[in-house]
Amino acid sequence: MSNRQSIELTDDQIDFGMREALAQARIAGSVGEVPIGAVVMHEGQIVGRGYNLREHAQDATLHAEIMAISEANHTLKTWRLSDCQLFVTIEPCPMCSGAIINARVGAVYFGARDPKAGTVRSLYQLLEDGRFNHQVEVHEGIMAEAASGLMQTFFKAIRLGRGKPKPRQH
Amino acid sequence: MSNRQSIELTDDQIDFGMREALAQARIAGSVGEVPIGAVVMHEGQIVGRGYNLREHAQDATLHAEIMAISEANHTLKTWRLSDCQLFVTIEPCPMCSGAIINARVGAVYFGARDPKAGTVRSLYQLLEDGRFNHQVEVHEGIMAEAASGLMQTFFKAIRLGRGKPKPRQH
Repeated sequence: MSNRQSIELTDDQIDFGMREALAQARIAGSVGEVPIGAVVMHEGQIVGRGYNLREHAQDATLHAEIMAISEANHTLKTWRLSDCQLFVTIEPCPMCSGAIINARVGAVYFGARDPKAGTVRSLYQLLEDGRFNHQVEVHEGIMAEAASGLMQTFFKAIRLGRGKPKPRQH
Repeated sequence: MSNRQSIELTDDQIDFGMREALAQARIAGSVGEVPIGAVVMHEGQIVGRGYNLREHAQDATLHAEIMAISEANHTLKTWRLSDCQLFVTIEPCPMCSGAIINARVGAVYFGARDPKAGTVRSLYQLLEDGRFNHQVEVHEGIMAEAASGLMQTFFKAIRLGRGKPKPRQH
């Protein structure tokens, strides 16, 4: 069962989506969390936002994508997001890749790869595995330098002792 | 980095954990949700419970394991569950496998395999992949007949038109 969607976003919509995800990532960074952000777009509008809040909430499930998907589900009053696009600054981990599949998200746009825990392109290609009951259109490298720049600045600050030493999100 | 824990549970503790997970699954089934349940155990006590609530909440992230892990995080006031065991009636999907890794759960005990979406043994072996920063001890087949029996009864009722036709959880 392939549910690949074919909603074509304009370049402006893609720019808008990733800028909004980067804004979420900056909120995470500003409160000392690993700076990863995500948004869900529906018909050009943002219907869900999220940023990594693991440390503040002491909740391992509170990654940016989970928050954004859950908020989009509540906004649209449905768990099915097949006509939605998810934008996230860093390649999703297994938990978030799975949430994207479970929510039947139509397309994912991500910034930089995560070679240690990314399961969209790096370690696995979960979103495109035809054995699951949903496959997701994948676009990578969207504003990747801005996304990885936020991460590098954050971890450099930790190494220099100017931030709280927090373990990696993934 | 291997974080395999070696806390040995007694047979009575394993029985207790899975009976509690099955009780959660029955709650899901009683409200028309796919009957899957999970609990998190810490030092022999249940510190998190969850059951599949996707349809009622219209939230794709509300699988049993996510609820149980999040509740355990809140109960223990930490996202790290390395000295905990998670019991779940059916083999976890990618989202829940990822949440188990992210929460550094020490061990997982599950009932029946899910050949369509299970990523602990069936389609992938995510919990034992040495490339992630945490590996999880896996025990399968715990009260598997009871777990799969609940699922079979649920789907048979749907086929007979005595339940609301809901798509599969995974």
